[in-house]
This record gives sequence, structure tokens and C-alpha cells, in this order.
Amino acid sequence: MGLRLRPVDTSFYVLLTESAQHLIRGASLLAEMLADGADHDDVARRMREAEHQADETTHAIVKKVNSTFVTPFDREDIYSLASGLDDVMDMMDEVVDMILLYEVKLLPAELSAQVEVLQRCAELTADAMPNLQSMQSQSLEEYWIEVNRLENAGDKNHRRTIAKLFSGEFKTIEVLKLKDIVEGLEEAIDAFEKVANTVEQIAVKES
Amino acid sequence: MGLRLRPVDTSFYVLLTESAQHLIRGASLLAEMLADGADHDDVARRMREAEHQADETTHAIVKKVNSTFVTPFDREDIYSLASGLDDVMDMMDEVVDMILLYEVKLLPAELSAQVEVLQRCAELTADAMPNLQSMQSQSLEEYWIEVNRLENAGDKNHRRTIAKLFSGEFKTIEVLKLKDIVEGLEEAIDAFEKVANTVEQIAVKES
Amino acid sequence: MGLRLRPVDTSFYVLLTESAQHLIRGASLLAEMLADGADHDDVARRMREAEHQADETTHAIVKKVNSTFVTPFDREDIYSLASGLDDVMDMMDEVVDMILLYEVKLLPAELSAQVEVLQRCAELTADAMPNLQSMQSQSLEEYWIEVNRLENAGDKNHRRTIAKLFSGEFKTIEVLKLKDIVEGLEEAIDAFEKVANTVEQIAVKES
Repeated sequence: MGLRLRPVDTSFYVLLTESAQHLIRGASLLAEMLADGADHDDVARRMREAEHQADETTHAIVKKVNSTFVTPFDREDIYSLASGLDDVMDMMDEVVDMILLYEVKLLPAELSAQVEVLQRCAELTADAMPNLQSMQSQSLEEYWIEVNRLENAGDKNHRRTIAKLFSGEFKTIEVLKLKDIVEGLEEAIDAFEKVANTVEQIAVKES
Repeated sequence: MGLRLRPVDTSFYVLLTESAQHLIRGASLLAEMLADGADHDDVARRMREAEHQADETTHAIVKKVNSTFVTPFDREDIYSLASGLDDVMDMMDEVVDMILLYEVKLLPAELSAQVEVLQRCAELTADAMPNLQSMQSQSLEEYWIEVNRLENAGDKNHRRTIAKLFSGEFKTIEVLKLKDIVEGLEEAIDAFEKVANTVEQIAVKES
Repeated sequence: MGLRLRPVDTSFYVLLTESAQHLIRGASLLAEMLADGADHDDVARRMREAEHQADETTHAIVKKVNSTFVTPFDREDIYSLASGLDDVMDMMDEVVDMILLYEVKLLPAELSAQVEVLQRCAELTADAMPNLQSMQSQSLEEYWIEVNRLENAGDKNHRRTIAKLFSGEFKTIEVLKLKDIVEGLEEAIDAFEKVANTVEQIAVKES
């Protein structure tokens, strides 16, 4: 039996995957919130629950990083990943909260396109987390390239949506509300890109 | 006489405490600015003075970090603390400036609740700085937990305030002005939380 | 013949200078965009091209950092500089895009003052990059002090411009559009300051 200089503690990958799976749930609740006839109070309540569960996973990762002597990759990088994933959830929760609190009546169709980008990013991220263990550099590379591509598409859609809000079609006070919501969606997409960039940095270091 | 491998230079704690005390002054001037019948020009002038003094303390810390061979804790962490404290002051100064420049007539009561949060954060931060010297981990922990709790309360109050601005009660151009001010207050609270998080990281490392 | 412990690879300085020169081009296109009777579509198209070229230089730097064993200064600092320069270009490109998409009719004269600040920052930055090689600390210091001074002037101008937008002179929907544009200009100036701060940190470390 050989010596393993760096024993692999697989629970980190399990927890990071769990954290990314909360984001699939969050993005799906966001899609529900945008649907016609959605019960905003009920969806917001379930989003709050999902956000609390995501918080617990984040705390479990941080606690594990602090109490583990040899981590599978840099302590700081695990911390970045955990807080990066948590940031996505916080932004999605904030958007749901804004839709509830601002009592927005009409949500333009452009918002759904952004939520679809978020759902796709969440799936890709959850699929990528277990690949950190095997450092399957090719599949990890496909993941971060695709998330960057999605972020670019989301950015273009974002600018067009803001231009539409400014077109004169909406009351100015509604423009203000919708602009906050639209910017929240874009920040959530940016937060996914940041996670992908962290994964890229880890993969480059470990290769 | 024994050897001290890490001679403690207490002036760092003195300067960091001084820096936090400028924030007590800043938060108090902000409260004055919101009071009925406040002389906006006069308060803004005194805020500018307070901000210059805070800048001088920050520069004194940075200069001391650069010229000291053995710092009591990581050079980078002292720098983070100093610039974090400075960021709070800058944000409070910016809010006072906006109230002056935008010529806002009516400031909703919700703003005072946020300034109370800022005043409480400033006191807690000034009390915590000297405890960095003795690394009294329990009192430091109480500090950062309380600041995080205050930031959560401030965040909830923030979202409700924005929802109130959007309720139709205010003219749209006034909504725009007040939104900038309200967001400035929230950024100042966030900046306090960032300082608390830096203290937590230092305490965890040193423990 | 003596040994060189740290062989200087001058191509890093060439690429960083090239990156800063793209910013001179970007700032000049921004000025063109603001000019009376500008062909917005045509300027925006040329800005997109300039932004793509800047991206290529950024990628060339990152690739070089990853493939070079001994870099002239910290790998991380080169990366910070490259991405900092890239952030300026992205912000300037975003402003041009907003002017095009929002179909803003009247651009207040205050915007030109901010673009002049950007043009001056770009020139100073392009002049400073080659001085990193010789670590001419005096000329580097003059550069970062001047950029910080310009950022302060830009910040004052920014607050006054926002106050003007809020003065009642403009339609509220136009205020919203112009505020986005004005904030974009300020972020571009901030991004120049961040580059200058990175240069300062490098110079302090190397001195």
C-alpha cells in the first residue's frame, strides 16, 4: 500500500455539489415567481426556506475548512467557491423579494430569458462540482467556457431589456421597479460567472 | 529578561481605535443632518472636516505598516482593516453630501432607523478595536455577531424603505433622489459588516 | 559575464503598454460619441472593434503569465494590472453602448468634462507602463498621485452632474437614462484609479 501525501476528503465535493444544487432550486423558484398567476407570497416563503438551507450548507463548508488540516485544494479557494455559490443564492432571493415587495404588476417577457440563463448556469455548475474531485480538466473547461458564453448572452439581453424599459412604453415609477429587478437578475448571472472563474483558477493551479 | 519574538507595537491598536472613533463622529453628524431644521451647509462642512481627519488616521496607519518590520498581525490584514474603516467614513460623507446637493425637502422617517444602525455599529466597532490587542476572542466574537445581526436588520429595513419609495406616495424625481441616499446608507452598513468580517478572519487566524 | 537571477522579459511591459494604448483609443471614441452630430452607430461599431482588440491584448498577457516561469514582478500583480486595464475598456464600451441603445437626444455638457478626465487618465497610464520596467519610482509616483487627483476632481464633477440631473430641468425618464451614463463614466474613472493603486503597490513592494 502506497502513501498518500494528500488524502482526499471527498466530503468537500459532496458539500459543494449540495451548495450548487440549492441554486437549481432557487432558479426554479425564480421561474415560478415570474409565471402568470403565481402566488407571490407562497413562492417567496419557499425561496426564503431554500435560502436558509443554502446558508446551512455554506456554514458546513466553512466549518469543515476551518477544522480540516489538509484540504483537497487551497483553503482560500474552497472558501471562495463556497461564498461565490452563496452570493448567487442571495441575489436570486433578493430578486424574488423585490418582485413581492414592489408589487410589480406586469413583468416583461425579457425577464424570463434571463431566468432561463440562470437555470442553465445552475445546472452546469451543479454538474461541474463533482468533476473538481477528479480534476477532469476537459469537462471543467467546457463548463467555464459555457458559463462565460451564457454571461455574455445575458449581458446583451440585459442591455436590450434596459433599453426597452426606457422606450417610453412603461410608467417611470414602473421603470424604476423593473430596473432594480432586471439588474438583480444580471448580478445573479455575474455571480455564476465568478464561480466559474474561481473553478478555472483552481483547475489551472492544480494542472 | 526574556526574549519577545513578536514585540507588540501597541500604536497600531491606538490608531485603529482612533479610526473607528472618527466613525462615531461621522454617524452622529449624519443623524444631525437628518434632524428637522438642520443647517445642511454647516453639518456638511463639519462632515468634510471629520472625513479629512479620518483620512489622516488612515494614512498614519498605512505609513506605519510600511515602515514597521514586525507588525502585530498580518500586514495585509491591518491594511484591510484601515481601508475598511475608511470606506465607512467615505460612504457616510457621500450620504451627507447627497442630502445637501440634491436639496431633498422631506426625508422619510425610515432613514433615521438606518442611521441608528450606523451609530450602533460605530460604537461596537470602536469598542472592539482595543480587544484586537489582547485577542479577547469572546468579546470579539460578540462584536462581529452583533454587527452581522445589525446588518441583517438594516437590510430588511432597506428593502421595506425602497418598497415605500415605490408605493406612489412620492414624486418620481424625489424617489430617484431618496433611493440614492437610502442606498448610500445601506452601503455604509455593509462597509461596517466588512470590517467585522475582517476582524473575524484575523481572530480565527491568530487563535 | 554575470548571472542574472531574475531575467527581465521585456515583452510584459510591451503588452501592458499596448493594453493602456487601447484605452487612449477608447477614450477618444467616447469623446467622438459625445460630439454634436456624431454618427452613433458608426462610433459604437468602431468602439466594439477597439474593445475586441483590447481583449486580445489582455488574453496575450494572461497567456504569457501562465506560460512564463520567472515573471518580472509577481504573477498576481501582472494579472491585476491586465484585468484592471481591461475593466476600464469594458466600462468605456458600456457607456458608448448605452448612448446608442437609450437613444439619448441631449447629452449635458458636464459629460464632456468627465470624458476629458478619462482621456487624461488614459495618456498618463500609457506613459506610466514602460516606467514599470525601470521602476522609475519618482515618475511612477507622479503618475499615481495625478490619477488620484483626477479621480477626486471627477468625483466632485460627478456629484454636481447628478445634482443637475435632479434639478427639475430634465424629464424623469431622461434623468434615468443620463444617470446610468454618468455613473458609467464615473466607474471608468474609478477603474483607472484602481490601476494606479495597483502600480503603487507594485512599486512599494519592489522598492
